[in-house]
Amino acid sequence: MKREDLKALLEDMSLQEKVDQMMQLMGVFYLDDAEGVLTGPARQLGVGEEDFWMAGSILGTYGAEQLMAIQRKYMEKQPHHIPMLFMMDVIHGMKTIFPMPLAQGATFEPELSGKCASAAAKEAAVSGLHVTFSPMVDLVRDARWGRVMESTGEDPYLNGLFAKAQVEGFQGDDMGKPYKVCSCVKHFAAYGGAQAGRDYNTVELSEHTLREFYLPSYKAGIDAGVGMVMTSFNTVNGIPASTNRWLMRDILRGEMGFDGVLISDFSAILETVAHGHSEDEADAAKKALEAGVDIDMMTSVYAANLCRLVEEGTVSEALIDESVMRILELKNKLGLFENPYKDANSEEEKTIILCDEHRKLAREAAGKSFVLLKNEGLLPIDMGKKAAFVGPYTNCKEIISSWAVTGDTSACVTIEEAAKEVFDLTRTSFHQGCQILANDYHLTGFGNLGESVPKELSEEEQKKMFEEALTAAKEADLVVMPLGEHFLQSGEATSRAMIDIPEIQMNLFREVAKVNDNIVVVLFNGRPLDLREISKTAKAILDVWFPGTEGGHAIVDALTGKINPSGKLPMSFPYCVGQVPVHYNEYATGRPNLEGMQERFKSKYIDIPNEPLYPFGYGLSYTNFEISPVTISKDIVTDGQSIKASVTVKNIGQVEGTEVIQLYIQDVAASVVRPVKELKGFEKVKLCPNEEKQVEFTIDEPMLRFLRADGTVGSDEGKFRIWIGSNSDTKNEAVFNCRK
Amino acid sequence: MKREDLKALLEDMSLQEKVDQMMQLMGVFYLDDAEGVLTGPARQLGVGEEDFWMAGSILGTYGAEQLMAIQRKYMEKQPHHIPMLFMMDVIHGMKTIFPMPLAQGATFEPELSGKCASAAAKEAAVSGLHVTFSPMVDLVRDARWGRVMESTGEDPYLNGLFAKAQVEGFQGDDMGKPYKVCSCVKHFAAYGGAQAGRDYNTVELSEHTLREFYLPSYKAGIDAGVGMVMTSFNTVNGIPASTNRWLMRDILRGEMGFDGVLISDFSAILETVAHGHSEDEADAAKKALEAGVDIDMMTSVYAANLCRLVEEGTVSEALIDESVMRILELKNKLGLFENPYKDANSEEEKTIILCDEHRKLAREAAGKSFVLLKNEGLLPIDMGKKAAFVGPYTNCKEIISSWAVTGDTSACVTIEEAAKEVFDLTRTSFHQGCQILANDYHLTGFGNLGESVPKELSEEEQKKMFEEALTAAKEADLVVMPLGEHFLQSGEATSRAMIDIPEIQMNLFREVAKVNDNIVVVLFNGRPLDLREISKTAKAILDVWFPGTEGGHAIVDALTGKINPSGKLPMSFPYCVGQVPVHYNEYATGRPNLEGMQERFKSKYIDIPNEPLYPFGYGLSYTNFEISPVTISKDIVTDGQSIKASVTVKNIGQVEGTEVIQLYIQDVAASVVRPVKELKGFEKVKLCPNEEKQVEFTIDEPMLRFLRADGTVGSDEGKFRIWIGSNSDTKNEAVFNCRK
Repeated sequence: MKREDLKALLEDMSLQEKVDQMMQLMGVFYLDDAEGVLTGPARQLGVGEEDFWMAGSILGTYGAEQLMAIQRKYMEKQPHHIPMLFMMDVIHGMKTIFPMPLAQGATFEPELSGKCASAAAKEAAVSGLHVTFSPMVDLVRDARWGRVMESTGEDPYLNGLFAKAQVEGFQGDDMGKPYKVCSCVKHFAAYGGAQAGRDYNTVELSEHTLREFYLPSYKAGIDAGVGMVMTSFNTVNGIPASTNRWLMRDILRGEMGFDGVLISDFSAILETVAHGHSEDEADAAKKALEAGVDIDMMTSVYAANLCRLVEEGTVSEALIDESVMRILELKNKLGLFENPYKDANSEEEKTIILCDEHRKLAREAAGKSFVLLKNEGLLPIDMGKKAAFVGPYTNCKEIISSWAVTGDTSACVTIEEAAKEVFDLTRTSFHQGCQILANDYHLTGFGNLGESVPKELSEEEQKKMFEEALTAAKEADLVVMPLGEHFLQSGEATSRAMIDIPEIQMNLFREVAKVNDNIVVVLFNGRPLDLREISKTAKAILDVWFPGTEGGHAIVDALTGKINPSGKLPMSFPYCVGQVPVHYNEYATGRPNLEGMQERFKSKYIDIPNEPLYPFGYGLSYTNFEISPVTISKDIVTDGQSIKASVTVKNIGQVEGTEVIQLYIQDVAASVVRPVKELKGFEKVKLCPNEEKQVEFTIDEPMLRFLRADGTVGSDEGKFRIWIGSNSDTKNEAVFNCRK
Repeated sequence: MKREDLKALLEDMSLQEKVDQMMQLMGVFYLDDAEGVLTGPARQLGVGEEDFWMAGSILGTYGAEQLMAIQRKYMEKQPHHIPMLFMMDVIHGMKTIFPMPLAQGATFEPELSGKCASAAAKEAAVSGLHVTFSPMVDLVRDARWGRVMESTGEDPYLNGLFAKAQVEGFQGDDMGKPYKVCSCVKHFAAYGGAQAGRDYNTVELSEHTLREFYLPSYKAGIDAGVGMVMTSFNTVNGIPASTNRWLMRDILRGEMGFDGVLISDFSAILETVAHGHSEDEADAAKKALEAGVDIDMMTSVYAANLCRLVEEGTVSEALIDESVMRILELKNKLGLFENPYKDANSEEEKTIILCDEHRKLAREAAGKSFVLLKNEGLLPIDMGKKAAFVGPYTNCKEIISSWAVTGDTSACVTIEEAAKEVFDLTRTSFHQGCQILANDYHLTGFGNLGESVPKELSEEEQKKMFEEALTAAKEADLVVMPLGEHFLQSGEATSRAMIDIPEIQMNLFREVAKVNDNIVVVLFNGRPLDLREISKTAKAILDVWFPGTEGGHAIVDALTGKINPSGKLPMSFPYCVGQVPVHYNEYATGRPNLEGMQERFKSKYIDIPNEPLYPFGYGLSYTNFEISPVTISKDIVTDGQSIKASVTVKNIGQVEGTEVIQLYIQDVAASVVRPVKELKGFEKVKLCPNEEKQVEFTIDEPMLRFLRADGTVGSDEGKFRIWIGSNSDTKNEAVFNCRK
């Protein structure tokens, strides 16, 4: 439809009809067998039957057939036959589940993440969906926060690359094309900064840090053309994001140039009342509209108030027109006026969803996301050895994360299933050993959701399981222990004050360690965990996160050396929870506790090191790489002239492997204090044994820019340090100057 | 001296002479037996002999005789015979050590703290000192930070009252009067906000929070007429405080109207180079001068650079004149031009220092600072019972804190010494049980300071001590266990990632608990500790902090019921370290986890409660108080009309006691999100059994003001909640409205 036709349509719409476009309800209300909803949930929401049938969009329902049915029925009732938008959380896969986003960050391969998004878009599109609430690009620094699993980590540069790749993966160059969906960058802004790692909590940041660290990844998504942005639950500078005019009008729309649809997070406009920023629902509606929030997710705050507020003259209808126009434009971009069902196709659902190509991609992505944290010669497994798999994740299908709501764990491949394809079963055994969580482990508020809570086993059953596992561990040459968090311990609203592996599993680990020295831990986790104990005792640790549908295959690929781990941590693994928030790119202090210092009055703890247990960018390989000292082509960068910084990387081990060569920069002195180190580039280098390759980075003046004390963005003259190495702790340093 | 005479003096001074007034060195350099200093430390500092003898002030040396000698010698050499300023960290007492500041906060009695400051000033003054670097008024929310012990806690209002009282205590109404010293409010600004509780670390705050929570206590000190302010080590908005022009010129001098001397913290100007804000020392000198820092503590950054910078035209001599004039004015306020020795008096040192009056005050203050955290009938101790004192603090004199550098532990009264004065020794025994810290406990960087590090005991000695204690515990009716942190585990540069009681003591506690159910823990601590375990097992816990010189007496007073504990926590005791930062006055969120909620998507942890183990304002008594529901005189506050809110408090127990009745307010909806609760008043009420009293608070419009979204300070119309109760967790609520 042409823009003028959209305008004409808008002009023809009644005020209530327009306002209803701005309301989003749960798709489940619209299902054929849910007709009773109007006497139930919808009434509770305060939405009348007429408005109910004019809602501009729904969320949380998928499936070609049922979405087509809803669309058909809806368009009949909608006075202008405007099609409805169908949205869903398709976060790291639709049915084929790829590794969780933090694991995707560990690939240091945004293009791969883009391919996963593209595959997810295809499955979503044929399922009838138009919009996905993904990617989440929030910067994260606190392992206590449950949603770190949905982020790609603690680095603004890395997050920005993943934001761009995923937006492009979902949308392609035109979201109206087949198999593409509209992407939604979330949560604007700084949701990841929740104080004390407690979800939905206050975010306390200087504007400088907000702009330098937190905003760039959203900007990257917007620059990639994302069609939608979601508000965050937190306050920014004391004002909830969903009613924060400065944040939305001045920064998001003004400075960042976002002209797509701005949607609230689930009930977030209403929640500004609980925040104490809005007096009541009507006030919340007014403030959110004035901030420029176009769609109110899952409440009737807009639908029940905006008409009256316009009629009273409290808010301007022009603001409503602006929002509705954006919604109509999005529908138009998706081609819904021409074809309201877009790609919905129940035949293609059967051929595309979980197709071999997607499974293959999921296996590749999972394998590339694994981070080898430690390896004292046990990996890859010597197939001649007798191996016992001991741990609750040995044959567990719940490996897709808590935010893969469209996923189906029955489609998952477990470690045991995959191992049986390649291991000699006369020498290999599989044992659960214990439950993921003890019977008495209490996940507040999870029980009533009907979600997969751990099955309770009797003491006798547990004892039998435990002893059988110990016997096997004793008899084996090596023990592979698939351990970790329960998937419901990470994700939204799952902040943990203790970031440990459940005690029931640690008991198993300790007992196994008493009978067998050769332990390989395969770690499942939605967040960085406290690994002090297992990092001392286990001889090898492979971090596999929540790897998705093809997890078992990918893990066995890595354990057997079919693939060589190359993942790198996108988030520091703290030494212990008392060290958080911890991140490699901290600001310089006046009393740095430099290596080897034993002085008292330095910035440090007296009981633990300052350094995380495993730093950002860290990850081992089955081979070894030698990295030469940094050489730089010149030692002066000017406005017009860049320099080259390079190293030679050589595979000095016995097998082919991939190293992620990372470039870090520090502005030594500046008008505002700068981070001690910032990632500015990286390259994945695949090398055969004895092969070497030069890796070269171009350093130009724009790379040195930052938000200066005077409020301008630019570079400062003076000294810079650079490092090129295999993780953020590299000491491979060179120095150059920037001159104007 | 008159102001015009000071001006004339200033005009007559050479540039170098002026710059040298801005330098502060260690007093130890100037001692008679330290003449060799010019070939050693002073040379290392880059200070020439001539400049050395023109330094405007020294720090860290006391004693009438030696300071008088230094002054005599100095004035002979100083071209204009300007007297030197003698400064020292007299934090919570000079020789008579009062409870540490956080403990003073627990008294909820600022007047008492003022009396302690006044006594400290008297001892300092006769020792020849002119200035004390006290009070520290930094707001603290993170128990990991070692310097929480130097603060009065997490509440801006309470901190402000203590700031005022202490400044007035040190200075009186005229610091030139006998026995008064100049006070120094520190550390400007927001030093207590160190990220991850790591000392000297970055402070990350919105300007709103900085202004609303962190700045008010400094302002209170300035309004009380403090003569000096000290810069902080941290950055504020990305710029180190000591070179932060906006912070010092615009806020401190401009908005807050401070016209006294601004001194850097120890080496803090130089450290802006390490921060990466200054290019080099000369740049640091320039930036600090431009920010308005008058004195450079313990480096030659000013002395070695400012003259040249003026001569080169890089900095203006007028700025130097401005600073030197402030320094001369301070010397003049102290009357040093008339009497350069002020109160220095070696005879009076003997009579005033540690005099009975001061000891009595120390005993009173310590007793009032104790917080009774738990009491299941064991306290006060039934003197007919057989009591065993078991724990490393039973007979320990190191109870004055790590920041009582002038204090003398030999003057301290231990628990055992005090108990022997009143307990029946046929029924009472005393046992160390174990060391405070295990032999292998490593306090980084402490060894080389020659400080009191724990004495190592052999395994055999330890075993003997342990077993003897256990035997005694078994035979006793009740066991009093004086346990806690080592004094070197708190204070500057002692951040702890684990806030536990040392494991060696917990082992003792667990073993004692196996043989005796009746345990009273007497807790020594420089910070809130993780008390989960002892709070379950012990029947009573009395928190005595680091109580100072008269600690033993005061503790025995409390244990025996001679005094009735009335202290209240000035800082939340976290449930565990994974909960920090935690504070009662947090901002409201959009998804509050209200009492009794079992829903998943609320702001909470899945493994611990949101609430601290013991909240701000909490503390029990040996009696019980009944507090009536809140009554309010009217439910509308207007610009001109205040209302009264009151409760009746009744002592319903058996003994006399004191309750701290606390008033909290919440602005339910405002232009920026407001705290869930804020302390706005309190009253200490002493009641005999069955006595009751009405406690009334006046609520007026100024009490409701805050920094609004538009940048103005004022109150908002609308609903307010108030609570009146015995701690911050009170549910005793009423509601009123503010109207314009």
